[in-house]
Amino acid sequence: MDAAADPRVGELTEGAVLRAILARLGPSRAEIGPGDDAAVLAAPDGRVVATVDTLVHGPDFRLAWSSAYDLGWKAAAVNLADIAAMGARPTALLVALAMPDDTRLSFVHGLADGLREACESLAPDCSVEGGDLTVSDTLTIAVTALGSLDGRAPVLRSGARAGDVVAVAGGLGAAGRGLAKLFGRFRDAAGRPIPVDDVTRTDRDLVAQLRPSPPIALGRAAADAGATAMMDVSDGLVLDATRMAAASGVTLDLDTAGLGDDPDPALTGGEDHALLATFAGAVPEGFRTIGRVVDRGAHPVLVDGRPHDGRGGWDPYQDWDAHRG
Amino acid sequence: MDAAADPRVGELTEGAVLRAILARLGPSRAEIGPGDDAAVLAAPDGRVVATVDTLVHGPDFRLAWSSAYDLGWKAAAVNLADIAAMGARPTALLVALAMPDDTRLSFVHGLADGLREACESLAPDCSVEGGDLTVSDTLTIAVTALGSLDGRAPVLRSGARAGDVVAVAGGLGAAGRGLAKLFGRFRDAAGRPIPVDDVTRTDRDLVAQLRPSPPIALGRAAADAGATAMMDVSDGLVLDATRMAAASGVTLDLDTAGLGDDPDPALTGGEDHALLATFAGAVPEGFRTIGRVVDRGAHPVLVDGRPHDGRGGWDPYQDWDAHRG
Repeated sequence: MDAAADPRVGELTEGAVLRAILARLGPSRAEIGPGDDAAVLAAPDGRVVATVDTLVHGPDFRLAWSSAYDLGWKAAAVNLADIAAMGARPTALLVALAMPDDTRLSFVHGLADGLREACESLAPDCSVEGGDLTVSDTLTIAVTALGSLDGRAPVLRSGARAGDVVAVAGGLGAAGRGLAKLFGRFRDAAGRPIPVDDVTRTDRDLVAQLRPSPPIALGRAAADAGATAMMDVSDGLVLDATRMAAASGVTLDLDTAGLGDDPDPALTGGEDHALLATFAGAVPEGFRTIGRVVDRGAHPVLVDGRPHDGRGGWDPYQDWDAHRG
Repeated sequence: MDAAADPRVGELTEGAVLRAILARLGPSRAEIGPGDDAAVLAAPDGRVVATVDTLVHGPDFRLAWSSAYDLGWKAAAVNLADIAAMGARPTALLVALAMPDDTRLSFVHGLADGLREACESLAPDCSVEGGDLTVSDTLTIAVTALGSLDGRAPVLRSGARAGDVVAVAGGLGAAGRGLAKLFGRFRDAAGRPIPVDDVTRTDRDLVAQLRPSPPIALGRAAADAGATAMMDVSDGLVLDATRMAAASGVTLDLDTAGLGDDPDPALTGGEDHALLATFAGAVPEGFRTIGRVVDRGAHPVLVDGRPHDGRGGWDPYQDWDAHRG
C-alpha cells in the first residue's frame, strides 16, 4: 500500500482514527456502545466480572515477530481467559490504545481486525464496546474485559481442598516453546528481532505464542461441573499452581504423566492461558487430570512427588531486560 | 529517602510491587476484589457503565510538573468524570500501570495515594478493585472506571432539543490556563520542562490542570433533574459542544455572559472535566446556565450569536509534538 493510501495516525484527527477502528469492530451489542462518554452494558445477574491486562512493545511483544492482527487477537485472548477463569462469560472489551504518531493506519486496521476476530472465534457474545486513543512513544494496548457469571458463583483460586483432582484445559508449553524459537531463531547477530517468515508463522508453537486460543467456553463448563478452584495459567504451570496452593492453603501434587512427552516447557513455560482447575467430582469434558490436591505440606507444589521451584515462569520485573534483544 | 529504602521496581518482584500498591488502596468494596484473575463487582440494576482513559508520559503529563500523587489523582478524576457524565455513580476502578523498571517504589506509593484520595474525595463509593502491572519505557496509566445508573436512564450526548437550556457544572478554562502557565513559565531555554515550585503549585489554575476535581455527584443530580443530554467537557467547551450538537442534531447557542470575565480559555481550554448538560426544565443546583438549544442551523455552535471554530481544543493526534518541550 502506498503512503498516500496508508497515512500515519499523526496525519489524521483522533476522530478519523476512531472511525477507522469502529468500522472494523462490527455492530455493538451494548445498550449504549462506543461514541458517548461511557458504554452501558448489560449485567444480567446484577454483578459484573472485570479484568485488565496490558501488552507493551518490548516486554510483551516485538513488531518484528507480531503482526498488528496478532496483537489485537492476543490482547483480546489473554483478557478473555481471565474472565473465563472466574467461570464467567465475556461480554465486552474496552481497548485503550496508545500509539506512536508515525503508526500507519493499516496497522490500526489490522489491530481492530484481530480484536474482532478473537472475540468472534473465542467468545462470540463479546465485542469491543469502548476505548481510548492516545499517542505514546511506546505502542501499548491495555484491554479491559467484562463478563457475566449468569447466576453462577465465581470460581476463585482459594477453593481447592485436599482430595480434589487437579485438571487443566488448553495447551501447556507451546507458547513458551514458541517464545524460545523466536529468541533462538529470529534475532540478528546483535540480538535484535528479525521478521518471522510466513511458513514458520504457521508453526504450532509460534501460533500459541503469537495468537493464543484459550478455551474460553470451558471456564463456564468448569464452573457448572462444580470446579472448587480455577485460574488462568499465564506465568507457567508450577508458578501459577503455587499461587493457587497458597490461596487455598493446600499442596498441589502434579504428575508429569499428564503433561505429554516434553513436560518441562509445560511446567515452566509462560503465556499458555490454559485453565487450571480443581474438582471434587468428575472432571468435565475438555479438561484432563494432571494431579491431585493434598494437605498442605512443606512445599506448595510437588511434581511427581518432588518439590519443583517452577523456575522458567515469567516475572516482568525480574525477567525483562530491555537490552537483551 | 535513601536508595536502599526506596528501591527501583526492577529490583522487586511483581508481587512485591503489587502488595505495596494494595496496602495503600484501602479495603475492597467488591464481592471479589484484587487478587484473583478478575474482580466481581455489584451491578445492582443489571447494567454497568464502563469507560477507559489513559495518561501517557509526554503527551498527557510531564514528571517535572506532575507528582506521582497528582498523576494518580488525575487518572482517577478524568475517568470518574466520564462515568458522571452518563448520570451514573462510580463504583470501581481498574488500573493498568506500565512503568520503566527504574521507577522508584516511593513513586508507586504516591500514585496509589493519589488514586485512593481522588476516589475518597470525589466518588466515595468507588475504589480500585483490580489492575495490571507491567514494565514499559513510557510511564502509562490506563484507568477503567465502572459505574452504576441505579435505575436511572443514561444521559447521552444525543438528547438535546431546541428550547432546552444549556448549562455547565464545574470550572471552565482554569485547566487550560494552568497548562499555558506550565508551558510559559516552567521550561528551560531548550524548552524542556522544569519543576514547579511548591508555592506556584497551589495556584488555582495549576491545581485545575494537575489535580482536577470534576463535580462527580452533579452527574446524578443532573440525571435526576431530567437532563436531556450531558457530556464531560475534556477538549474545550466549543469543541465538545460541537460534538453534542452533532449527536443531537441541533445548534447550541452559548452566551459569554455566563463564562466569567475571561471567556476565551473557558471556550477553548481543554481538560476542564466540567459537565455540559441540557435541561428542558429548571437547571439544578450546581449548574449555571450558559446558553440555549436552538434548531440546527448553519453552525453547530454559536457564541453570542456568531460562529466559533473552537480552536484551542486539544486533539492528541493533531496537537502533540514530541519535540516541543
